[in-house]
Amino acid sequence: MSRSDIGVIGLGVMGANLALNLSDKGYRLGVYNRTAAVTAEFVVAHGQGRDLTAADTPQQLVSQLAHPRVILLMVTAGKAVEAVIEQLSPLLAPGDILIDGGNSHFRDSNRRWRELGARGILFVGMGISGGEEGARHGPSLMPGGAAAAWPTIREMFQAIAARVDGVPCCQWLGDGGAGHYVKMVHNGIEYGDMQLIAEVCHLLQHTLGMPHDAMADTFAAWNAGRLESYLIEITSHILRQRDRDGSPLVDKILDRAGQKGTGVWTAQDALEQAVPLTLIGEAVHARMLSARKAERVAAAALLGSPPAVVPAAERAAAVDALHDALYAAKLVSYAQGFMLLQAAAESEGWALPYGEIAMLWRAGCIIRSRFLGDIKASFARQPAPPSLLQDPYFAGELKAAEAGWRKAVMLAVGSGVAAPALASALAFYDGYRCANGSANILQAQRDFFGAHSYQRIDRDPAQRFHTRWLGDGGEELLP
Amino acid sequence: MSRSDIGVIGLGVMGANLALNLSDKGYRLGVYNRTAAVTAEFVVAHGQGRDLTAADTPQQLVSQLAHPRVILLMVTAGKAVEAVIEQLSPLLAPGDILIDGGNSHFRDSNRRWRELGARGILFVGMGISGGEEGARHGPSLMPGGAAAAWPTIREMFQAIAARVDGVPCCQWLGDGGAGHYVKMVHNGIEYGDMQLIAEVCHLLQHTLGMPHDAMADTFAAWNAGRLESYLIEITSHILRQRDRDGSPLVDKILDRAGQKGTGVWTAQDALEQAVPLTLIGEAVHARMLSARKAERVAAAALLGSPPAVVPAAERAAAVDALHDALYAAKLVSYAQGFMLLQAAAESEGWALPYGEIAMLWRAGCIIRSRFLGDIKASFARQPAPPSLLQDPYFAGELKAAEAGWRKAVMLAVGSGVAAPALASALAFYDGYRCANGSANILQAQRDFFGAHSYQRIDRDPAQRFHTRWLGDGGEELLP
Repeated sequence: MSRSDIGVIGLGVMGANLALNLSDKGYRLGVYNRTAAVTAEFVVAHGQGRDLTAADTPQQLVSQLAHPRVILLMVTAGKAVEAVIEQLSPLLAPGDILIDGGNSHFRDSNRRWRELGARGILFVGMGISGGEEGARHGPSLMPGGAAAAWPTIREMFQAIAARVDGVPCCQWLGDGGAGHYVKMVHNGIEYGDMQLIAEVCHLLQHTLGMPHDAMADTFAAWNAGRLESYLIEITSHILRQRDRDGSPLVDKILDRAGQKGTGVWTAQDALEQAVPLTLIGEAVHARMLSARKAERVAAAALLGSPPAVVPAAERAAAVDALHDALYAAKLVSYAQGFMLLQAAAESEGWALPYGEIAMLWRAGCIIRSRFLGDIKASFARQPAPPSLLQDPYFAGELKAAEAGWRKAVMLAVGSGVAAPALASALAFYDGYRCANGSANILQAQRDFFGAHSYQRIDRDPAQRFHTRWLGDGGEELLP
Repeated sequence: MSRSDIGVIGLGVMGANLALNLSDKGYRLGVYNRTAAVTAEFVVAHGQGRDLTAADTPQQLVSQLAHPRVILLMVTAGKAVEAVIEQLSPLLAPGDILIDGGNSHFRDSNRRWRELGARGILFVGMGISGGEEGARHGPSLMPGGAAAAWPTIREMFQAIAARVDGVPCCQWLGDGGAGHYVKMVHNGIEYGDMQLIAEVCHLLQHTLGMPHDAMADTFAAWNAGRLESYLIEITSHILRQRDRDGSPLVDKILDRAGQKGTGVWTAQDALEQAVPLTLIGEAVHARMLSARKAERVAAAALLGSPPAVVPAAERAAAVDALHDALYAAKLVSYAQGFMLLQAAAESEGWALPYGEIAMLWRAGCIIRSRFLGDIKASFARQPAPPSLLQDPYFAGELKAAEAGWRKAVMLAVGSGVAAPALASALAFYDGYRCANGSANILQAQRDFFGAHSYQRIDRDPAQRFHTRWLGDGGEELLP
């Protein structure tokens, strides 16, 4: 009887495409879907010339796998994953490998790794990015969990992953939920990148009065430079797309963005880790605001004024400023994202390979870009920088972009166009490069109303002081 | 044997001051502290002329209370509250009232209300604001939980609360954790108010080059107008405070702000409720950034440029602009805070009395201000507005402040001074009053890379569409 190399459970678009990708690379597959008709259709559509074995039950799937068994779950994160794991785990033996390829929360993966590990089952939480196309022809894969599983599954997943200069976008990330954590941050960064692009589009269209084809050309030109990335590229396509009546399709699309949770998770975890992840936070909130369409329409009637349009002679310079703003704000967002990874690595006890992470986001996934190659190079120079903003190369880039960035934000502020992510990134930059910030006022207030005490710049930071603000104004050194 | 009206457990600063406040109003007290010496000291210091009974054990405290027993816990939120409740609840009978006056998370209060309620014990989660002084002479009290407790405790707590025009700042807020929820949002708003003031101080000092006494005068003048509030008032005091050497004390205070968690909770819950609470989010993140002092000092050396100073002739107008910015941004922050309250009321099944909430924040607590009277008036006109930003009065105020607000944010952006909360509020305002925002780009991107589909502005919003972006460009109506 034929033994399959891997079993795939869940034949939705992502599961089916990953299965075909694995099959293309010569792996023998067992496939199973809860709805039997889906399994049957998959085999009918794709079985010819492939080593595919359909299973009617999880038992059957497990029984036909070579040892140690390798099973890839491609089912919806949450209850479905939980249910399938409950069903499968009694069928598995110590040494078997169970891989969750969905968008599970890293805390669930931490738990599953622990619980299954206690029974000898090697649990892997693997983040997968790249959408349908990536899954089919080369995704970015972010595996973590039971390190003992890696030697067995490495070849298989590196074979199907995207590649940059021959290096696969699939590297081991660490224990427990490390893979799903990195995927979560990837998605948060994706929210930020998308929001920045949306803001710039809005400014080009409404403040600079640029026609859609010119906007598409602008994005295409930007895609040949520093901003080269998948999202810039598709934005150019999107802006060129026409509706049936020949008008730009984007203007017919309702300005109400959905979200599936990973952006919110990233923002929540940043709050948990005390990392100032402002840009992704603003991007998540911008989607929430976008959902309040009726409220915005009413508010526009009450509060709205049409945005000013920049005089024609100044538009070219404004476009350059928007380019620099997009680039610099993106840099801030990635710096914040890596700050979050560093904080999580510390609190979770992971040794995250930052340079590798940049590399495996370099292709296959939604945020893929040339820029990630620069980040990889930065981590090669300094493996644990205080922040990417302090990398000499990026510091130089920021300084070069700074004037345009300020100009772009002022353009937004002056013309009444919302650019929360561009503006938030600049405020973060100005706060970050401020040796003596405004938080002295906060501490004075906290000491005034709550006797929370403060430190002094001219004393040992271990010493804490309290001023009798409303009394004699004297200052006490607290014991 | 004397029977006490209420037992107070926990005689830290807040517990002791609330006990004295209750005693001043004629209530007979039983007091207990885990460390017996603290109880003894309290009685020695304050017993004279008061009806105070010290208890050595919780049992003794409970035994000396009149029926139904009323107990106020003033112990640290978290494990300490949990432990005391475990210890006390077997000693209580159905109908007894247990009040948690600490900063507990509302979900803990929801749970305790349910669990104790199942045994007939009336649990009240009561937010208390006002710091030491408020506790002693008139705090803002935010009770919620078992409504059956309210008739018994109402008189007592309304007697000790702050008052505005004779109305006590203590009203029943709703079931379960409603009281602690409202207190949490109060604290989040407090974070926002403080951050806005800190940003304005920094701009006055570093961009306008204003001396501290002039800054203090400015805040004192502002405190006589629309911005009249406790935090503006104390900021004036703070700016006038001199260090031993005669220089302004604030400049010696380390710019590193602490936080105790309620701001983070507020920001997290907003993400949970899908409410775009951007300003408080930025305020929380600003504190997190402030904590990275060493990193900022290094970044300043690498990236920093000294801020530009505004020419003398333009400074007076800039000060007015900062006033308007502070006012308008504060309005946005409160509008967002009430959006969050509305969302929580819906998801938790509370009937929150918005106007009452504004009233009970009107005095006694840290965010007390004249402005909250205007909010109360707005809710009187329209009990469930889509948002305070759409109240005709506030809309007028915003329009009047808008030019100055934009000018102030441009001042910050142009001079390189971080003003994340002022800028974020303006971006929110511009997003909020935008009928057709930039999220159409996000939805197009999501449909492009993930086939997430989109709605159209010219079709029924129940219909969802997908474009074959890379194929023939055709659009499909999804089933």
